[in-house]
Parts: sequence; C-alpha cells; structure tokens
Amino acid sequence: MTPYAAPVRDFRFVLEELLEHGSLALPGFEEASPDLVEAVLEEAAKLAGDVWAPLNASGDRQGCTRRHDGSVSVPDGFIEAYQAYAEGGWNGIGVSEARGGQGLPEVVASAVQEMLHGANMALGLCPMLTAGAIEALAHHGSDEQQATYLPKLVDGTWTGTMNLTEPQAGSDLSKVRTRAVPQEDGSYRLFGQKIYITWGEHDAAENILHLVLARTPDAPEGNKGISLFLVPKYLVEADGSLGERNDVTCASIEHKLGIHGSPTCTLSFGENAGAIGYLVGEQGRGLNHMFTMMNEARHKVGVQGIGVAERACQHAFAYALDRVQGKRPAHRGGGECAISDHLDVRRMLLSMRARTDALRALALYCAAQLDVARHADEESDRQAAQARAEVLIPVVKAFSTDQAVEIASLGVQVHGGMGFIEETGAAQLLRDARIAPIYEGTNGIQALDLAGRKLQRDGGRALGGLIDEVEGTARALCAAPGLAPLGEALAAGAADLTAALAVLLEQGSDPERGPDAVQAYATPFLSLAGHVLCAWQMGRSALAATAARQAGSDDPGRPDPFYTTKLASADFALRQWLPVGRAQRAVIEAGMESLVAFEPGAQ
Amino acid sequence: MTPYAAPVRDFRFVLEELLEHGSLALPGFEEASPDLVEAVLEEAAKLAGDVWAPLNASGDRQGCTRRHDGSVSVPDGFIEAYQAYAEGGWNGIGVSEARGGQGLPEVVASAVQEMLHGANMALGLCPMLTAGAIEALAHHGSDEQQATYLPKLVDGTWTGTMNLTEPQAGSDLSKVRTRAVPQEDGSYRLFGQKIYITWGEHDAAENILHLVLARTPDAPEGNKGISLFLVPKYLVEADGSLGERNDVTCASIEHKLGIHGSPTCTLSFGENAGAIGYLVGEQGRGLNHMFTMMNEARHKVGVQGIGVAERACQHAFAYALDRVQGKRPAHRGGGECAISDHLDVRRMLLSMRARTDALRALALYCAAQLDVARHADEESDRQAAQARAEVLIPVVKAFSTDQAVEIASLGVQVHGGMGFIEETGAAQLLRDARIAPIYEGTNGIQALDLAGRKLQRDGGRALGGLIDEVEGTARALCAAPGLAPLGEALAAGAADLTAALAVLLEQGSDPERGPDAVQAYATPFLSLAGHVLCAWQMGRSALAATAARQAGSDDPGRPDPFYTTKLASADFALRQWLPVGRAQRAVIEAGMESLVAFEPGAQ
Repeated sequence: MTPYAAPVRDFRFVLEELLEHGSLALPGFEEASPDLVEAVLEEAAKLAGDVWAPLNASGDRQGCTRRHDGSVSVPDGFIEAYQAYAEGGWNGIGVSEARGGQGLPEVVASAVQEMLHGANMALGLCPMLTAGAIEALAHHGSDEQQATYLPKLVDGTWTGTMNLTEPQAGSDLSKVRTRAVPQEDGSYRLFGQKIYITWGEHDAAENILHLVLARTPDAPEGNKGISLFLVPKYLVEADGSLGERNDVTCASIEHKLGIHGSPTCTLSFGENAGAIGYLVGEQGRGLNHMFTMMNEARHKVGVQGIGVAERACQHAFAYALDRVQGKRPAHRGGGECAISDHLDVRRMLLSMRARTDALRALALYCAAQLDVARHADEESDRQAAQARAEVLIPVVKAFSTDQAVEIASLGVQVHGGMGFIEETGAAQLLRDARIAPIYEGTNGIQALDLAGRKLQRDGGRALGGLIDEVEGTARALCAAPGLAPLGEALAAGAADLTAALAVLLEQGSDPERGPDAVQAYATPFLSLAGHVLCAWQMGRSALAATAARQAGSDDPGRPDPFYTTKLASADFALRQWLPVGRAQRAVIEAGMESLVAFEPGAQ
Repeated sequence: MTPYAAPVRDFRFVLEELLEHGSLALPGFEEASPDLVEAVLEEAAKLAGDVWAPLNASGDRQGCTRRHDGSVSVPDGFIEAYQAYAEGGWNGIGVSEARGGQGLPEVVASAVQEMLHGANMALGLCPMLTAGAIEALAHHGSDEQQATYLPKLVDGTWTGTMNLTEPQAGSDLSKVRTRAVPQEDGSYRLFGQKIYITWGEHDAAENILHLVLARTPDAPEGNKGISLFLVPKYLVEADGSLGERNDVTCASIEHKLGIHGSPTCTLSFGENAGAIGYLVGEQGRGLNHMFTMMNEARHKVGVQGIGVAERACQHAFAYALDRVQGKRPAHRGGGECAISDHLDVRRMLLSMRARTDALRALALYCAAQLDVARHADEESDRQAAQARAEVLIPVVKAFSTDQAVEIASLGVQVHGGMGFIEETGAAQLLRDARIAPIYEGTNGIQALDLAGRKLQRDGGRALGGLIDEVEGTARALCAAPGLAPLGEALAAGAADLTAALAVLLEQGSDPERGPDAVQAYATPFLSLAGHVLCAWQMGRSALAATAARQAGSDDPGRPDPFYTTKLASADFALRQWLPVGRAQRAVIEAGMESLVAFEPGAQ
C-alpha cells in the first residue's frame, strides 16, 4: 500500500483560508495559536504516516483473534501504535483542560481524527469509541464516577465501548432487552447480550469501560424504560487499582467485510452472577443520554469516511502517475504516457480529489460550528451555531460516508486489474469504507433525522440560514472574474435545495401522510443537501484560491500548484458533480406514489 | 445466503411481451418454439437454483488452492456442479447445431447465462471463458483445429482460457511481449508470462485449451506483430487422446477481493523447452481475431453483472420482508412492521428491482439484435442489427456492471449491520460484482469504444436509430392513459441524449482536440446513454404491462402482482432514476477544461 501523507496543506487551507482561524479565536482557545495548531497538525501527520499507516495492510491481513478463554488479541503492532498515540497525549486533544485534556478546538481535533482514520481506520475506531465513553461520563456521570474513570479514559490508559445493539434492537433501540437488576449497595447486575461492539474486547489497554443500555425491572416498555450503565471489564478498587474481573465476556468476534483490525464483539453480560454495573445519569433516560453524544459520534464517522477517501485518493494518484499505458495524442508529441494523462482516468482522479476536498471543508465547517456552539460569548451565537451544526451533522455523517464508498470504489477502478488484487491495497479501502454508511445510525437513519426531526422542528430555519450563505457565495462567485459559471451553478443548486425543502416541509407536516413523506424524501433530500453544501465549500475555496493569487502570495510566474488544483477541483465540483446531485430535486418532485404503490412482498 | 430463485417470469415477460418472440422466429431457430424455450428456462432455473447456487457461499469461503506442483483445485462441489452443467448439454446451447450445440437464440442463451452467474458467478466464469475459446476457433481455426478441439470444448469436456494480459500490457495490448518461435513442423514454441488468467489452471476438466496472444520473431512492433495461438495444457494426439503435458504452468493464483471460487492464474509459458502452440488464423492478426469475439464476451460480462444484481435483490428483499424493526404510522394501525414497509428502505428495494429489470430488458434486447444480425434473411436487416448491437454492447457491459456494483452495495445497506458480516452473504455479492467493471475491457475502455470508435465511425447513425425508437416509445406513453408523466420523462431523456451526442460528434471530430474530447466525455456519455436506454425499456415494460391488463390476461379483481410491480418499477425508473442520468448532459456541456487544466502530479 502506498505510504500515507496526511493532507496538512489542505487542513491549513481550510482552517486558515476558509475558516479564517474563526473558532480558534473563541474564549477558551487562547492557547491554540496558529503556530501551535500547525505544530499539532505536523506531529499528528507524523504519527499517522510513520506509525499507524504502515500497520494498515498487515492489520487487515492478520485480523483479530479470539481465544477459547474469550480474550481477544489485536493485530501485531497495534498495541504499540495505540500506546504511542496515548503516550503522545493525542487521546485528550479535544477534551477540556479541566478534565485533563488539551482543550483544543474541535476543528483541530477533527483534522487529527481524519489523519488517524486515513492512516488506519481499524485502529482509529478504538479511540473513537473511547471518546464516546468520555463524553457520556463527562455529561452524565456522577462526580465520583468522573473522578474514578475519566482520567484514565482521557489519557488512554483505559478504553471505552458503546453497547447499544442487540439482535432484535438495531435501528429501533426501544427494543433493548438487557436487564439491569438493582443491588442493595446501589449497583446493578446486568444480564443480556450485546452485538457489534467495536473494540469490545482486546489486549491493547489494561481495562475497558463498557457503556451499556439496559432495562431496569418494572421499567416501562419502549424508550423510557432504558437506562445507561457503566460496566468495567475489571472492577476498580477505591484506590484506583484494578480489582476483580467482571462478569462480561466476549462470546465471539465477527468475520467482517472490512476493518479486520478492529475487533467487533458479541458481549455476554451476566453469564454467572451478573455483570456489576453503575447507573450513569438518570434512570429511564439512557437513550437521551446516548443521544447527547450521538451528534459528535456521527460527525466523527463522517470524518472517518473522509480519511479513507483521502487515502484512496493518494493510492489511486500514485498508481495512475506511475502506470504507463497507451498514448494521449495531445500529450508530449503523442508518445506513451502515464494513465493519469488519459482524460477518462483524469476524470476519475479529479472526481476523487474534488469530492474529498469538498467533504473535508464541510466537515471542518461543521466542527467550527460545534466550537462556536460551546465557546462563543453570546448565548444567541451559541444557539445559532448549535442549530446549524445539528442540521449539518447528519449530512456530514451520511453524505461523507456514501461518497467515501464511491471514492474508494473509483480508487479500485483506477487500478484496473490490480485494483481487484488484495495485495494492492485499494480493495481494502473499499471494504473498510463500506461500514461507515451503516454504523452509528445507518445513513437512512441520518436522512430521517435531517428530513424529519431537524428540519420539521424549526420549519427549516437553520437550513435556510445555510442556504442564505450558499446564495451569498454564489453572488460572490458571479462577481469574481472567471468564476461566474461556478456562481451560476451554485445559485441553481441553492434554488433546487430551497424548492426541495418546501416540498419536504409542506408534505412532511401533513398529519396523516407526513411520516411517509419524510421517509420517502429523506434520502434524496440529504443527497441534494450534501451536494449543494459541498459545492458551496468548493465555491468558497475557489474564491479563497483566487484571493490568495491576487494577494501575491502566489507568484504569477510560478503559480502554486495547490491553488491550480483547488481551482480545477472547484470547477469540477460545481459544474460536473453538483449537477448529479441537483437531479435529486426532480426525484423528490416525482412524488412518493410509486414507493407507496410498490409491495415488495407481492412479486 | 438466501436461496436463488431464477427470475423465469421476468425472462418470459421480456422474451414474450417486450421482444414478442422476435428473434425466435428467425431462420435457423425453427426448433426454438415457445414451449421449448419455456422448458429450457425452467430447466436452467433448476440447475442454477438447486445445484450451483448452494455452492456460492462455500466456494467463496474455501477459495481455490494451488499446490507446489502448480496444480490448482477448485472449491468442494465445483467439479460436480460443472459436470452436471456439461452433462446437461448447457455448454452448447448457444453454439450452432453444425458444431455440436443446440443452436438456440442468443436471447435464450443470455437468459441461461444470467441465471448461472446469479447462482454462482465464480463457477459461471469457467464456461464463459470456454465460450470465448469456442468462438475464436469457430471463426479463425483451421478445419483440422476445429475438428480436433471444438467438439470437446462444445460438450464441456475441455475448457478454454483467454491469455491476453501481461504485466506491462493491460488496456494496451500492443505491448504484449510473449514470444512465439516457429518450429520446423509448423508449430510454435511460446515463452512468456500471462497474468489474470481466469480458470487458467484447475481440476474440473481433463484438459484446458489456452488461447494466447504472442509475438513472432521479427514481427513489427505494436498491434500488427501480435498473433493468436492455441496452447493445450495436454497435447492432443492424432486419435484425440491426451498426450504429453505441455510446458505451461500455473506460477501463482491471485488473492482477490471476490470471485474466490474462480482461480485467477499467472501462467508461465516455456519455462523449459517452450510451450507448444499452434497459430490460429493469420499471423499478425491476433488482436483482430480477439476483437471479433470481444463484443460477445463483453455482452456476457454485462449479463453476469445483472445476474449478481438479481441475486442481491432477492437477498435484500428476503431480509427486508423478514426483519421487523420500528413502526410505520400509515401502516396497519401504526404497529411494528417489517423494514420493507419503511418507505426509505422501500426506496432502496424498488431502486434495486427497477434497475435490475431495466438492465435485463436492455441486455436481452441487445441479444435479440445479435440474433437478427446473424440470422435475418435480408443483408440490410443483418447489418442494421449488427450496427445497433455494436453500439449497445459497451453500454450493456459497462452500465450493467457499474449498476450491479451499486445494486449490490445497496443490498448490503438494506441489511444494516448484518450486511457487513460475511456470513450474511450480501457482502460477497458486492465483492464479486466489483470485478465486472474491470475485466474484459475496463468500463473506461467501453466508454471510449462507444464514444470513439462506434459513434464517430457512423456519425452516430446507429445510436440515432435507437433514439428514434426511444422517442416513439415516449410518444406511445404520452398517449396511454396514466402513463403521460413517464412519456414526458422519457422524451426529455431522449432530448438530452441527442444533445450530448451532438457535442460528442462535433468536438470528437476535431482533428486536434477530438481524441481528448472523446476521452473527456466518454464516461458521462455512456452513463447518459445507459440511463436513457434502460428507461426506454422500462417505458416499453409499462406499455406491455398496461396492455396485458387491458387484454384481460390480468383479472381486475385480483391484479397480477407481477404487473403491479412492473408498473411501479417503470414509474421509478423513468421519474426517479432517469433524472440522475440526465444530469450527465450537464456534465458534458460543462466542457473539458477543468480536466485538461488539472495536473494530477502537481499537487
């Protein structure tokens, strides 16, 4: 597999030239000077490229091993690579200083996450799940729980898991059956089975803290009967040392399409006396507690998709620039050329590059909104940014991951026959990427979250604010020399999104048919929104690249190829990628009758 | 994995109601009565469903094994399944009676091929390659070669392979280096290495006939120096018995993303005294001889994609109808429901079904054109059908296989978390499908074949004839009660294709920039053509389904669900799928400047 070179230049472009250091100037981020941020990005790039990336292919080949005693070992080198990460303090970069982290802005943490997932997605999942556990305890844990468990989670000594799914309870978590029986000492004993538990058992850390959704006795049916529990693999003594092994075991690990280096476990709770667990937050509010951290987890999965897409780009570019095959008449006197010179191959490469850049810019814009939502002085600013982030997150999660699968698949195609051979590495990226549209809420669930809850509750106001921004960028493009065609394309995209939003709001609010309408239009609507918002970011990129050139930071005699590529990517994104997304307006306007009439069981 | 039920009803719908038995009435097909065809389809369905399909998952898990002596064994059960196929006479159904086959029309042979690939694509590759060898010998072999080798290829006792690719010669076969040195007895000795040889070595048949592209000494460089040779694994004695082992060995088998049951071999020719080979056809015309059979082979790969897509549909439908999760307010009093009742899931299912049906109808329409091209009385009819088939074949190959990957990926998504677990089987279909856009000429090569050679040589005349037919169907839809919206959508699609064709012809014929323009527009053009032509077939399907209802073959009190589904599929295809393809017109009209400006190596 081609070495991974973290796209530090593009992170800096987004942070400095698109976001203009925006969220770095917020209260609480005083330490995050541009120099420090640059140093953090460079150091993360080294960890990703030098330590994590070389283990990606070998981890895929070797996979994880479960022994008869239920213990699980991760691929060779993963333990050391995880420890290098923990010892470098990377696990806490986005955690507040009060909790022992570095308190860096989410935009920086997101960039670091992208690098780690691009280097080694299977390994990246371990800290990603730990971050969820940190959030859960930080928001809902008691002072004592926080004191006991948070420091070792934040410094990466222990890892965390999220135990939600059961065989009968996937997208519908109200069906959770795992039981939590209260004990006299205030603890609980848990009994049940959880499936698809990422890094549920492994040998890379001395303890694992499982956060588990379970149902207390006599709890009402449905969502309101579900509570959140902390179940350590090893119980923690009063002095902080590790005590007895808890009654939770790994019953099996899954044989999966991808992310072979990430152990996906079935966990059995309470095969003997019951797994000792502690209530986190309020009884009956387990799902609510989970949802408070779900937005961030979903953003992280979107970023993960972008990381894999970036790696697929680099892999495909390296091959296409190296592989000589055929001739391009218009090129170098018509002699033989690298396949990257054939415009059909170049279309694939530019499509991969433009889309990856666009997804990254949107994900980091969203991260900046999260920073503002937490750190801005004014409550109204915080609320507005939070509303905007909540609309963007399902788009970042679903659109980035759907696109990542397509980008990784194009990466296979660029390699021709080599792409289908596992040793080449392109196929692994496709296999790994394919999980991201499924977990942390399927992309269908994301689309329903957007088209249902998030747009219906405010009548599309937050999205409308974003569309206003898109229109502003379109006007700026129309006024900029040479960029008018991009502006016209973007304005048309904004008009499509506005029209589709009107259909969704009108039909979605119908008391009788509303729920069906939301279901019918959700996926095309999210796709349309994703295309328009990504195109918007590429429109902004074109403006920023043009401004950089005009400001003379780019020598006209030797133009910086970064900006040349960015302008080509922006042109492609707005004029060749956006039109495909715009077609989703027609899909929505076609109505839902064929879906309603279709009876899948009656063929 | 869900059992495979061959879509016999849909094959009959296409043959009887769309093609109206058309090619079955041609001279030479007198035996192919509707009753016989129906019986053939039913018998093939049994072989596919009962014998081949149950080995699909186990063959994937076990894969092929190469031993130290270079012998290769295929997965358990494959030998018996292949022999059941050969003994049933299936290998010769499309081969003329004069050559020992059954001489059935290509439309019937294609339907049988789809079933076999849907049941077990890895095994289906073996006879697919043999068919290529049969074609090569039938068209270009000497009488003696035909007498010696054809009967055992046709009855399946021996299998065939195609040896084209070398490490430096993939899409550009002019770079073939394998040497063929003439011997005094008129034979040749071959020296060289071929890669990606499908079923290049195996234990399912007693002999393997390799058709090999190689270069004679002093031959000119490039295409004109390449000749075609027949190299048997075991030499064949004058009495037809097997003689000495030839000097060709399997050096390795590939570890691939999918089709694990199909051995993909690196073959070494002439590690000792040289592999004995016999010139097939004329010296220096090896590539031409290959290309004469390439059209058919490409059609078969398209059909293969459709087979896998159909299997993915069946797999996803079975899961979605069975899996209860969540509630649909508008459904059955708002209680729990199968996920197939959620309109967002139903969108995925209908999209899979509509696309698969559309691809099948187009592939069989193309097969019917091949039948007319070979069997029609009038030379002008034959030529017109041949021209039409040649335009359609790259579309059938590339569009069907690209769509098959998307359909298989949707199939994974329908399964949620289960889809990522290998035991479920959905992931295998995605892995298997992923090769089809790559081999037998990448889909980029198909697009260039269409946009370059096939459209430029006749100024788009053959495609124009097809567009006329599309417009006729659009008019008929507009005149049919309730189908006008479909007719309008189809008419708009036809207009887009006409406009894109004009751009392609105008810019493509430019002496200087023409080759770049063809490269730049090829892939979006093929995608547009695929969408429009598939939508056309679904428009014809809607008309046929409506006609069947009006003719009373469908009891109005109990409407046949087949037609209900077909009408929903047609509505979806024309109003929700076609718009996405229509966007490719805008992509083409955006021009090629961003592709030309983009320098992949200068980032």
